[in-house]
Amino acid sequence: MSTSLDDMTSPTSLADLDQAELIMDRCDELSTYSDMEGGIERVYLSPEHARVDKLAASWMRDAGLTTWQDASGSRIGRLEGETPGLPALILGSHLDTVPDAGRYDGILGVLLSIEVARRIAHSGKKLPFALETYAFHEEEGVRFGATLLCSRALAGTWTDDLWSLTDANGVTLEQAFIAFGLDPERIGDAAKKPEDVVGYLEAHIEQGPVLEEEGLPLGLVTSIAGARRFEITITGEARHAGGTPYPRRKDALVGAAEAVVAIESIGKGEDVIATVGQLHVEPGAVNIVPGEALFSLDLRAESDGARDHAWESIEAALKEICARRTLALKVRQIHSARSVPCAPNLMGSISKGIQEATGTTGEPRRMWSRAGHDAMAVGEMCDIAMLFVRCHDGISHSPDESILQEDVATALDAFEAAVWQVADEYRTTHTA
Amino acid sequence: MSTSLDDMTSPTSLADLDQAELIMDRCDELSTYSDMEGGIERVYLSPEHARVDKLAASWMRDAGLTTWQDASGSRIGRLEGETPGLPALILGSHLDTVPDAGRYDGILGVLLSIEVARRIAHSGKKLPFALETYAFHEEEGVRFGATLLCSRALAGTWTDDLWSLTDANGVTLEQAFIAFGLDPERIGDAAKKPEDVVGYLEAHIEQGPVLEEEGLPLGLVTSIAGARRFEITITGEARHAGGTPYPRRKDALVGAAEAVVAIESIGKGEDVIATVGQLHVEPGAVNIVPGEALFSLDLRAESDGARDHAWESIEAALKEICARRTLALKVRQIHSARSVPCAPNLMGSISKGIQEATGTTGEPRRMWSRAGHDAMAVGEMCDIAMLFVRCHDGISHSPDESILQEDVATALDAFEAAVWQVADEYRTTHTA
Repeated sequence: MSTSLDDMTSPTSLADLDQAELIMDRCDELSTYSDMEGGIERVYLSPEHARVDKLAASWMRDAGLTTWQDASGSRIGRLEGETPGLPALILGSHLDTVPDAGRYDGILGVLLSIEVARRIAHSGKKLPFALETYAFHEEEGVRFGATLLCSRALAGTWTDDLWSLTDANGVTLEQAFIAFGLDPERIGDAAKKPEDVVGYLEAHIEQGPVLEEEGLPLGLVTSIAGARRFEITITGEARHAGGTPYPRRKDALVGAAEAVVAIESIGKGEDVIATVGQLHVEPGAVNIVPGEALFSLDLRAESDGARDHAWESIEAALKEICARRTLALKVRQIHSARSVPCAPNLMGSISKGIQEATGTTGEPRRMWSRAGHDAMAVGEMCDIAMLFVRCHDGISHSPDESILQEDVATALDAFEAAVWQVADEYRTTHTA
Repeated sequence: MSTSLDDMTSPTSLADLDQAELIMDRCDELSTYSDMEGGIERVYLSPEHARVDKLAASWMRDAGLTTWQDASGSRIGRLEGETPGLPALILGSHLDTVPDAGRYDGILGVLLSIEVARRIAHSGKKLPFALETYAFHEEEGVRFGATLLCSRALAGTWTDDLWSLTDANGVTLEQAFIAFGLDPERIGDAAKKPEDVVGYLEAHIEQGPVLEEEGLPLGLVTSIAGARRFEITITGEARHAGGTPYPRRKDALVGAAEAVVAIESIGKGEDVIATVGQLHVEPGAVNIVPGEALFSLDLRAESDGARDHAWESIEAALKEICARRTLALKVRQIHSARSVPCAPNLMGSISKGIQEATGTTGEPRRMWSRAGHDAMAVGEMCDIAMLFVRCHDGISHSPDESILQEDVATALDAFEAAVWQVADEYRTTHTA
């Protein structure tokens, strides 16, 4: 269901609403912009992308920002600092969604950015840098299978091989750009130079249960895990279950089962996240000893070193199991993304923001992000840091995503305070 | 490829061939009667069934037997004993095959039976009972999904619910009977009364590697394992791999993997055969913790007691794993067949037959059959015993099935000697 293009002015307005309530209402409003019957789905360069872009533009203008769409389709709002044309501190997240999505993944971060900018625009004080709010798209990679596209465009890491990616209907990314009214030739215009950027801050729902379990509204992200993904094939010998006694078996499934148990044990022991989400058995008959087991491994850790060490442990375990059971092992890495550590200075600003907003003096809860975020791509170009907001039961990528309005209010206070902290520090380092 | 109906006389004849060579040649000849291009497949009530039935009839006649087809489609040959109409000692096995079958599974037993009957018919001596040779069909259950059909008809355990079974084309068993020229109403005529039967002996390839490994041509079967089959579902919670730390996971696959490892360990420890041949994971995405794992269990043992004890151990292990991991467990038994022990007297006769044929005095290698055989069904009606013949590398249900002609010669001697042993013992017990 979509709101018609004639109805592009938001019915919500700051005059009669508390800002946190406004954000919650706008999350609800955005949820009605969907390609999907009975659920939320907004993919890159779709009519819904165009519609929510106009809506975001109206909200940014309403907050006192100048606004434009960049060459990748991101919506940007800008608040000038003490003088026009200063480097920018960027706040942002994304407005695209997975199929049958929730209302807050990405979206909350965009709306918090706009409301922080509104507060600063109305504070009567000027920042020593410009403030830009970004609403990215295709963070999820749903349409073309490649994630973080608009944030890659900002970071200048868009590569030419992306243009030939196709969607489910065979439309290339290049064709979709043109149909949307964007010019592929100008994609480089979306990129910022590092010297024009102060840093990047992103607020996001936790997508995990830790904050809720510990009774905390906000968390401080230390790094964004880079995932490595593997396709692992264990080959034995398919034989009749009845006729083949144990000493003669080369059972690929029992080998894979030992591997799955070992992978969990290594994951727990080395404080990484190792998940086997797929497992397929051949030939898969009730009375035949499996000749082949194919399974996936998704590996995430706070640092690349920790992740790669865990992989070495896992690989050694796989080799030991297969050697002991006379099975053949084949490993293929199908994905690898480096982890992105958050910048200590920006983390310090978010930390002080959380302390101020929550009225506490201790260190905020530190945690590494198991999921990817636009900040990963932006981190190729400038320092980044992230604020996590408590969500219910760790649920994400589901219509059941749920957050508390009081946490939104606290997050808004903390995110704003963090920006002022960045400003204070920036003044110190740039006037010395 | 099939031989035409006009060419129903076997090109092989005893005059110029050793009997073992004759049996090998006839196994080769039968392999050309197939529904399948480039492989062997003969299913129940098919044109190939009719063709090999005529061929078997010609071989039985050639061996000196009177012959007919019974109401289920089995081919029977009969050699009268000292007086006509005596109870019969039955020798048999099956002529139907699995798809892409080998040349010996079932077939060797039928051909050995016919050659044993030929020897006795030509011995100049009379047995104190009649000798019948059976060529069963639909032992494998390929066409209608139910196994041991013709041997069930002999045992009088055919049930009315079988008639409505359908093949892959929707043809019911009843329709197939009529199309083949059989009368479903007369199925009861195929059943023998226990008082008309002395016992049943079956020779079969081992379908396992034990005899070959131990350098023995023949083995003595102690029992035919009854299988129990289960469908086991372990349910946890599907969650995002990134966002869900270990303490919050209810990973159905890791639970199932522990179960697969435990099942193997229990199987080895309790000397039963426990096989997980199928395992399916839901939702089966690389970055989602599995919410459900469904797997099969095939359980076989020398005795029902051993098998059921192993199941109790496995069920306890499953419950412990699921309780410890907060997973739900659902178990459904989808098949259960009692094991059929071989009759000590008949085993004694086969044992002596093996000793005589191999020139040894020690006990023959005793082994339980992990696979099902027609003897299982016949065992509902009379005493049974079985002789196993060495095959190469335990391979069965494959074009690579392979046996040695010298073992066929030894098996023929042993099988014949076993029949004379049964006769001696029968005389003792029936003249006392």
